[in-house]
Amino acid sequence: MLHATTSSQPAPLVPPRWQTHRLDHLATRDGSVLAPVTLAYETWGTLASTGDNVVLLCHALTGSSHAHDSAAPNDPRASWWNPLIGPGRVFDTDRYFVVCANVLGGCYGTTGPTSPHPADGRPYGLRFPLIGIPDIVRAQRILLDRLGVRRLAAVAGGSIGGQQALEWAVAYPDLVERAVVLAAGARLGAMGIALNEIGRRAIAADPRWREGEYAPGDGPDEGLAIARMVAMLSYSSAADLDARFGRRPASRPTREPTLGEAYDVESYLQYQGLKLVRRFDANTHLILSRAMDRYDVAEGPQRGSDAAALGRIRASLLAVGISSDWLFPPAEVRALAEGVLAADGRAYYAEIESPLGHDAFLKEWDQLDAILRPFLAARADSRAPP
Amino acid sequence: MLHATTSSQPAPLVPPRWQTHRLDHLATRDGSVLAPVTLAYETWGTLASTGDNVVLLCHALTGSSHAHDSAAPNDPRASWWNPLIGPGRVFDTDRYFVVCANVLGGCYGTTGPTSPHPADGRPYGLRFPLIGIPDIVRAQRILLDRLGVRRLAAVAGGSIGGQQALEWAVAYPDLVERAVVLAAGARLGAMGIALNEIGRRAIAADPRWREGEYAPGDGPDEGLAIARMVAMLSYSSAADLDARFGRRPASRPTREPTLGEAYDVESYLQYQGLKLVRRFDANTHLILSRAMDRYDVAEGPQRGSDAAALGRIRASLLAVGISSDWLFPPAEVRALAEGVLAADGRAYYAEIESPLGHDAFLKEWDQLDAILRPFLAARADSRAPP
Repeated sequence: MLHATTSSQPAPLVPPRWQTHRLDHLATRDGSVLAPVTLAYETWGTLASTGDNVVLLCHALTGSSHAHDSAAPNDPRASWWNPLIGPGRVFDTDRYFVVCANVLGGCYGTTGPTSPHPADGRPYGLRFPLIGIPDIVRAQRILLDRLGVRRLAAVAGGSIGGQQALEWAVAYPDLVERAVVLAAGARLGAMGIALNEIGRRAIAADPRWREGEYAPGDGPDEGLAIARMVAMLSYSSAADLDARFGRRPASRPTREPTLGEAYDVESYLQYQGLKLVRRFDANTHLILSRAMDRYDVAEGPQRGSDAAALGRIRASLLAVGISSDWLFPPAEVRALAEGVLAADGRAYYAEIESPLGHDAFLKEWDQLDAILRPFLAARADSRAPP
Repeated sequence: MLHATTSSQPAPLVPPRWQTHRLDHLATRDGSVLAPVTLAYETWGTLASTGDNVVLLCHALTGSSHAHDSAAPNDPRASWWNPLIGPGRVFDTDRYFVVCANVLGGCYGTTGPTSPHPADGRPYGLRFPLIGIPDIVRAQRILLDRLGVRRLAAVAGGSIGGQQALEWAVAYPDLVERAVVLAAGARLGAMGIALNEIGRRAIAADPRWREGEYAPGDGPDEGLAIARMVAMLSYSSAADLDARFGRRPASRPTREPTLGEAYDVESYLQYQGLKLVRRFDANTHLILSRAMDRYDVAEGPQRGSDAAALGRIRASLLAVGISSDWLFPPAEVRALAEGVLAADGRAYYAEIESPLGHDAFLKEWDQLDAILRPFLAARADSRAPP
């Protein structure tokens, strides 16, 4: 902790409530160097002097460090995992030092495409390197080192946050006691890549994208909104959409004209697109969705196969699938646990029964609590580090 | 037949090989009047003097009257149901007079958004009325009347072609002996509407769309390509895409840049987008996808419910679902047959076992043959007209 350089951060997108840590430089796996790098993070609870009572939470694509909102701890909409964090909650802040950092390449305080390029002060845009999940995880590791963290009692996340939790367990086996991987598998399938690509294509087709060289506040809003609409479908399920919207006419005003009367599902998607445009950045969407596509647990030093990668894990692994998830189908999540077990590791699989699709890891609070609480309470020393 | 006014039709999109019939005017269900209307159609086989050996085939969204290609009868890619049509085939041209007409609102010879508006000679664009499946079917009925058809031995189609076949059986119960509804249900669900809306939004976001007022050859190619990419996913399945493309790198050159190396599924979608742009019209895509959204078998005179609508059917109905279809899930297709049976009608359900998704009705030739052939051969007189 003594090593940390922190400052409050004025930010265009959300109120300044995170701390920041500055790295002079960071080399990415593809050989690019970012210098300097700011890492934005929030913490809840107190770091023990032993530096090992730490839970790292990894956010999903459009998330931020704001996993918990101490000012509104009982409002599930105030932050992305709000009900799971706090005194006596799953991630018990009386016991754990809970950390969440905005990902490298993000737009909530950490250096990313909206940050000024040191050469000219203009936003990086697509001059930002094509980072991967391992780069995001490595930046998190450096941050935690600087904060005085010696070992993670747990790392947890869903979707690309789940990819990060998995990568943590594989890349740094001696640092992780427990890993919770929700709604993510060893790699994204062709349908997921295709959906992401349609979103990226919509952004690139927007004339205001300007090859990524748009000015702040003058970006490809229409393209980003369409990308969000596609993403929202991939996070949902047909049954969920039928239950929530069916073929009902629009219940809120539509900004975009439709042919004839609008359906409710159309006004919902319009609203979600608009909402994201107000709080997110298009180039960031491109960079992070591509990191999601490219992640493959079998790639990296001392891997080469799923078996080799999962065999590196010393953490106790909890893989959590969602019954209606079609972005990361539950069978692919389950395969992670099976792979760890096959390598004589300790792993568990649980499934959230929900029609809500991929997004259930941000909504099914009771099931999340019931699944995560006993896993975090159990001892995780079956394969103590050497 | 004697009433038909036919002419060859020079067309921008495909070689002129269809016949046309002209109506002085056509009133649509929403009260619009189109005057005149050209209907493009093709026929195979010979109309019996009794006028009742007729099979009407209904094409899907981007299809045309070219269900069969007599010049290349053994090339499945030469036309959309080529292997099912011809002497001795499922739709036996030695026995049946097989007719397929381009839909009202289409862009393959029938009056649609690309046709000249009589007031100013410029394309209708979105001045074209918001037609529905019942309007498409009514235009087909008028055409068949003029051709001397008295009764349909069968009407068949998939997707919005299936919606048309269903509507035929409900709207004109005394004219239809057999109806084959493939990959379509009583109405489209929220996911289907949402996917269609994303495609429409991509078209409308393209600055070259110009509120639909683009000049021929200068349309929103980029938006239409994105709409096609979305549609291709909805016609496929995750398992199909994984099997065909997985995470392999692109096997063909990509025209659009991707972030880092392109995946094969990306180059495939790019290719499909480009291919459609060369042969289809964006406003037509808007109008017909909206007709697909809006169709609801329970709506219309003397209906009000699925039971009332399906109870009108006198035809023998064959509903064919596809195991991996997520646009019209098989349970929704099966429900059509169950609804007809519940009303004491004659109905059958068959399922194509295929990973190919919705598009299987254009690909699984052996299963289609095995399912359709006995149905067409069977007598269909259980509920003879009064």
